[in-house]
Amino acid sequence: MSVPHLMTLADLTPTQINRILTHAKYLKTTSLPWLAPQRSKNARLRMPSQSLFNKSVALLFSKRSTRTRVSAETATVLLGGRALFLGREDIQLGVNETVRDSARVIGGLCEGIFARVGDHEEIEELAKYSPVPVLNALSSLWHPTQVLADLLTLHEHANLFEEDQKAQKPSDDFKGLLQPVRPLTVTYVGDSANVLHDMLVSFPRLGHKLRVASPEDAKYRAPKPVWDRVVQLGCDKNIWWGKDPKEAVQGADLVVTDTWISMGQEAEKAQRLKDFAGYQVTEELCREGGANPNWKFMHCLPRKQDEVDDEVFYGPRSLVWDVSDNRKWTIMALFDVLFGKWTLLAEKPFVKQH
Amino acid sequence: MSVPHLMTLADLTPTQINRILTHAKYLKTTSLPWLAPQRSKNARLRMPSQSLFNKSVALLFSKRSTRTRVSAETATVLLGGRALFLGREDIQLGVNETVRDSARVIGGLCEGIFARVGDHEEIEELAKYSPVPVLNALSSLWHPTQVLADLLTLHEHANLFEEDQKAQKPSDDFKGLLQPVRPLTVTYVGDSANVLHDMLVSFPRLGHKLRVASPEDAKYRAPKPVWDRVVQLGCDKNIWWGKDPKEAVQGADLVVTDTWISMGQEAEKAQRLKDFAGYQVTEELCREGGANPNWKFMHCLPRKQDEVDDEVFYGPRSLVWDVSDNRKWTIMALFDVLFGKWTLLAEKPFVKQH
Amino acid sequence: MSVPHLMTLADLTPTQINRILTHAKYLKTTSLPWLAPQRSKNARLRMPSQSLFNKSVALLFSKRSTRTRVSAETATVLLGGRALFLGREDIQLGVNETVRDSARVIGGLCEGIFARVGDHEEIEELAKYSPVPVLNALSSLWHPTQVLADLLTLHEHANLFEEDQKAQKPSDDFKGLLQPVRPLTVTYVGDSANVLHDMLVSFPRLGHKLRVASPEDAKYRAPKPVWDRVVQLGCDKNIWWGKDPKEAVQGADLVVTDTWISMGQEAEKAQRLKDFAGYQVTEELCREGGANPNWKFMHCLPRKQDEVDDEVFYGPRSLVWDVSDNRKWTIMALFDVLFGKWTLLAEKPFVKQH
Repeated sequence: MSVPHLMTLADLTPTQINRILTHAKYLKTTSLPWLAPQRSKNARLRMPSQSLFNKSVALLFSKRSTRTRVSAETATVLLGGRALFLGREDIQLGVNETVRDSARVIGGLCEGIFARVGDHEEIEELAKYSPVPVLNALSSLWHPTQVLADLLTLHEHANLFEEDQKAQKPSDDFKGLLQPVRPLTVTYVGDSANVLHDMLVSFPRLGHKLRVASPEDAKYRAPKPVWDRVVQLGCDKNIWWGKDPKEAVQGADLVVTDTWISMGQEAEKAQRLKDFAGYQVTEELCREGGANPNWKFMHCLPRKQDEVDDEVFYGPRSLVWDVSDNRKWTIMALFDVLFGKWTLLAEKPFVKQH
Repeated sequence: MSVPHLMTLADLTPTQINRILTHAKYLKTTSLPWLAPQRSKNARLRMPSQSLFNKSVALLFSKRSTRTRVSAETATVLLGGRALFLGREDIQLGVNETVRDSARVIGGLCEGIFARVGDHEEIEELAKYSPVPVLNALSSLWHPTQVLADLLTLHEHANLFEEDQKAQKPSDDFKGLLQPVRPLTVTYVGDSANVLHDMLVSFPRLGHKLRVASPEDAKYRAPKPVWDRVVQLGCDKNIWWGKDPKEAVQGADLVVTDTWISMGQEAEKAQRLKDFAGYQVTEELCREGGANPNWKFMHCLPRKQDEVDDEVFYGPRSLVWDVSDNRKWTIMALFDVLFGKWTLLAEKPFVKQH
Repeated sequence: MSVPHLMTLADLTPTQINRILTHAKYLKTTSLPWLAPQRSKNARLRMPSQSLFNKSVALLFSKRSTRTRVSAETATVLLGGRALFLGREDIQLGVNETVRDSARVIGGLCEGIFARVGDHEEIEELAKYSPVPVLNALSSLWHPTQVLADLLTLHEHANLFEEDQKAQKPSDDFKGLLQPVRPLTVTYVGDSANVLHDMLVSFPRLGHKLRVASPEDAKYRAPKPVWDRVVQLGCDKNIWWGKDPKEAVQGADLVVTDTWISMGQEAEKAQRLKDFAGYQVTEELCREGGANPNWKFMHCLPRKQDEVDDEVFYGPRSLVWDVSDNRKWTIMALFDVLFGKWTLLAEKPFVKQH
């Protein structure tokens, strides 16, 4: 059997994406009672999946990380295994040893590799030589695990977007099943970076419209390897891209943004603040631009005040903490079916569909 | 239910403190046989509590640590869970993200936060916004887990302080129960730092007298927020405070000290060595000062020679290794009832009292 | 019972070495099915040994490490326990605290210490004061766990060295038992460092001949404490040592090398490259030197191109990945019988011999 890897959501069909989301919801619903404060001595200590029981997953992270790392470590614990964090200080990928050799060595000792490397080519090289599955934790081009958490959160809050919200059943009624979410207009305001890239190749295929506002300079637009995948998957037909944030939020059900100044870009800070003038997500911007009055907000965190003000970020429109919590459950689902069971690309659903 | 936290022993009643100590002794006594070299294949592999089974505890440590960190990591393993060490290099609390946001994110992914931060306000901020319990691993003001280890060690060595030592039963007879310890005179010689502060709010309430010697300068005396708690709890009536170490050790059953030059204070080293001249704990000091001839010694480690000489530190009076070992068992007890069961502040004892 | 430690293979009899290798093979054969992708919900989740169940092993590493560290962490997970990596940034052995004090403290909190320190004296000091077993992960003098992995790999590939290779049974027939390997001629080409030192005290006692080529300068020859052990064990009779790599590979069944420029030796790089001119292991060198035409190659990794070319390193003679994988299984065997069971030096075999 060939080793399965996952570099971007572009590698998955819409059906496969939905299966992962359903599986994540199932794992979340069945795990939460075990994680609650332990009251009874008789509690049966068994998680819904122990596919990483006594197994190890290497986290190769060349940059600092909080959410992705902690989600991965805690998800592995839930699956019965152990995540091994190997940071920049621990292992210098490509310095003392070629990426090829490290991939073979680490892949020979662990049951999966979750890698946050610099240039996207590096993770492709890892996947080429690793004897075990490699999952992209974040690269210069893609960020699949973040967008899965966004999607799970949308499904969990599907009723927030319905016209007749009172008619909706509470999500508790679904017992771990995913609610369908109606076709949405999703606006991304900001720099074209890895989070947006995975939105570009997935949201349109799931029935949503994407509206993107970024400054005109080519460096703020999707790079060729990303756009090629967008076109190849036919996603471009459902994407509008302009430079005016107000125009972009027109009809938006969901507004998403990210920092304009990522790690390593501090030198360009002054220029970037100038280029992104007017891009801050605020009540005013969305009102003036004609967003759905009921619009919601997402951000992958960590957040700076530049891109969104406190009123929106800490207000009732914000779904940022739900997304942050869901990083864990979507990563757990991927670890289970990619590292634990190697069934990510299988034909069959991972759990019985009701 | 509101989320329980623990910042200092001042937050606990004497009854609650004694319950934790009893629970720690119970966990220690029942765990040690499982940790002994495994002889039989038939050993039943079950720890006394698995309240952190497949759960994760975040260790947010902005400073290096050996004892506290290793105690926390090994205690979590015993409880079936996993501690995630996040040091200064891993997460820069308050730099890339506000403390508030980090508290919500990490608290949403883990089942408890054990934090060693800089300024005490930072851990209060963590506790304010975390959805899971926060335990103070060491702050600028308090060090509750150290003082619990000191107290457990005193109870385990209660017979060392009895007049008629031969009449005492060996502690093995108590089968995991805490021996009572007679009211002691406890002397602290040195800088007024976090270890002493938690002694000030706990020892007097447990029936012991405290005698403290520190230089006259205000920076070597308890800061206002600490002394306010001392007075509020009525502990000041059983505290003598002067500047002469010889006077302080008068009648001492136990002498405690700590380094005068903590991490980050290296710049003041020359001044501090001068201010603490004569403060080194030695046989001579205690003999001349009129300590109980049977006096014992404690130190939270790491130790420098400035504050105690080799004769005392490595001699038969020293209980330092017992205290060091007990860091694990008292932290295990707190993790169990704070992170695992949320029953730290409950009315009922954690284990059946015999 | 006195605490067992392991500093070098010189501390073990040939019988004890073979028992560890047999045990490693047994653990490998029985663990691999559990580590394979999990297919069935009914899989019985039980490893062959859980001697570190809920126990902790401290990894005291003063230098960066990939293979040794990851092998140790994943092996501990398999045994049910948790390895705690304490690197240079986490603990400064001998800086804030004496090695003696740290040994007692950490040994009081963990069930074993796996240490990669600088000077060999430091690990001897650790072993002297630790209440739990200490295993040498790599010191300035010795590297026992690497050489055990080399030996296990030789046994697993015993048939590669037989004259009549077709007559050999495949190793799968042995069901976890070690195949005997015929007496070999083993050549080491390069610097006299810790890997070679443990070969010097073990290979001759297991029936193999050693041929070593290193430059004439005393710094490239075995230091006195090592050579004393070699002579004391009578190994010198089966060791040839010269300066000509071509002469050294004469009749070689196995050629081993290591980097000439280890961590910390970057300053001497130019001199070392000059001193080791002609030492690169190549097809040409071995053909001209008269190696067994069927010679195989080993390297402890990470590898630089200086000491071996791509043709050999990535070619069919290379056993480097097998050795790298076996780091885990030999370390698992040692952790099991040293940290978990304390039976490393016992009279009886660890597993039933068929």
